[in-house]
Amino acid sequence: MLETKLKAFLPLLIQHLFLYHYLSSLLPISMACNNKFTLDSVRDALIREEDSIVFSLIERARFPYNAPAYDPSFLGNGFSIAEFYVRGTESLQAKIGRYQKPEDVPFFPKDLPSPLPPTKYSQKVLLHPASASVTVNEAIWKFYFTELLPLFTTKGNDGNYASTVASDFVCLQAISRRIHSGKYVAEVKFTDAPQDYSPAISSKDRDKLMDLLTFVAVEEAVKKRVEKKARLFSQNVTLDENDSGKTQYKINPLVVSHLYDKWVMPLTKVVEVEYLLLRLS
Amino acid sequence: MLETKLKAFLPLLIQHLFLYHYLSSLLPISMACNNKFTLDSVRDALIREEDSIVFSLIERARFPYNAPAYDPSFLGNGFSIAEFYVRGTESLQAKIGRYQKPEDVPFFPKDLPSPLPPTKYSQKVLLHPASASVTVNEAIWKFYFTELLPLFTTKGNDGNYASTVASDFVCLQAISRRIHSGKYVAEVKFTDAPQDYSPAISSKDRDKLMDLLTFVAVEEAVKKRVEKKARLFSQNVTLDENDSGKTQYKINPLVVSHLYDKWVMPLTKVVEVEYLLLRLS
Repeated sequence: MLETKLKAFLPLLIQHLFLYHYLSSLLPISMACNNKFTLDSVRDALIREEDSIVFSLIERARFPYNAPAYDPSFLGNGFSIAEFYVRGTESLQAKIGRYQKPEDVPFFPKDLPSPLPPTKYSQKVLLHPASASVTVNEAIWKFYFTELLPLFTTKGNDGNYASTVASDFVCLQAISRRIHSGKYVAEVKFTDAPQDYSPAISSKDRDKLMDLLTFVAVEEAVKKRVEKKARLFSQNVTLDENDSGKTQYKINPLVVSHLYDKWVMPLTKVVEVEYLLLRLS
Repeated sequence: MLETKLKAFLPLLIQHLFLYHYLSSLLPISMACNNKFTLDSVRDALIREEDSIVFSLIERARFPYNAPAYDPSFLGNGFSIAEFYVRGTESLQAKIGRYQKPEDVPFFPKDLPSPLPPTKYSQKVLLHPASASVTVNEAIWKFYFTELLPLFTTKGNDGNYASTVASDFVCLQAISRRIHSGKYVAEVKFTDAPQDYSPAISSKDRDKLMDLLTFVAVEEAVKKRVEKKARLFSQNVTLDENDSGKTQYKINPLVVSHLYDKWVMPLTKVVEVEYLLLRLS
């Protein structure tokens, strides 16, 4: 009986060991500690990404909403300034080797140029086929511009469109990187308990997978931590030690916990589910 | 006697009033409070820029030094990855209207494209001829890559060259913007006391101007404040309230005060001096 069960898991185990080794080689240093790819190391990378997201939002908040930057008729070439800039920069970054890691997903993947030779990096690291196809960037683009941006920028137009959309792109990339790191989260969770996930994967049960991937207490802690980071990083720092109670925050800390609650964590789980559904293919 | 003196200052006064009005129209909102262009408002903008510089350094420190990104032979097209990326992004940003404000100075100004029509911003805001020619970007490029970068990045090579040079560019732009805001500093200082600066300007006495622009106590306070910001912003934030004493900083706070002491403040004063030398032309 036990032997039968073990035999049933053997192909899974071999595949797992292969993928484990493969994915470890792709991991950023912060995730791959001593070549170990663990939930702790992935979690540390996600926590570090929170700082990047908070910094990027604070930097975007230097400028008002600047509606003309998002008007598709403004440049006269069919693109908004934002889309024109993101497309151009993604093309440039692809040429120098970006978009080859599972968490770096372009917003406009069509017609991206190949890396210029010789990029050692691009030869060493290839996208895993299953993880490469998972993207929620369309959803990120939409919520960022239509829902999030008005929450943390002031109304108005100061004409600084180039700086504005460059800041938008940094926000989009940081948020996208965090959300698509869900591929690593899914991989380590699956690795730790394949028996928990395999039935739901086989039956393509998205709801069941979503349940398995949801930990309310962890999510509450994340929301509290990002709000704390927003408070610390967006305060006006002075040399007066008694000044900290009077600070005006550059962004509302509650907007950051809302961002995580409404979009970042749910979309991360969508990425995890979609990755898992491809995991046994 | 008094009348003669007043007459001598009259052309200066007229020029000043013109420039005052002109420069106010160029100022970012944070500097131009109620259309008033004062030392306080310029100082507030410089203090805000400190946060941007600290954030950008923390973000760059996510990656090790990554020497191949700076090797001019790596891409095979004559440029290092860093230079290729900065040139490409500056070109893209120029197309959408950047580099038209006195503090936004490109690192590679030759052959920058014109803004795509119709950009309302570019029609409204033109560079002031005297301030546009003042640039210390060559010095910034040099100290950043050869001296600063090794101080706050770890040794090593993780292959993330595209993300690395994108982060470098954010650092370079923030540092350059802060330093070239010296043009505003010089303008308000001159405006407040033209009689103090005019003799040294007329005799092209750079040393005297540098003396007039140096306030040791202010510089010491700036160094302390940026170090404090680096400590606050680069700490590892946890929900454990008793954890703050044990934090590991993502960048050494002393590197940031050193950056200001050795490069940012001296080069800002070089910009101020060069601007003043053109101020009466």
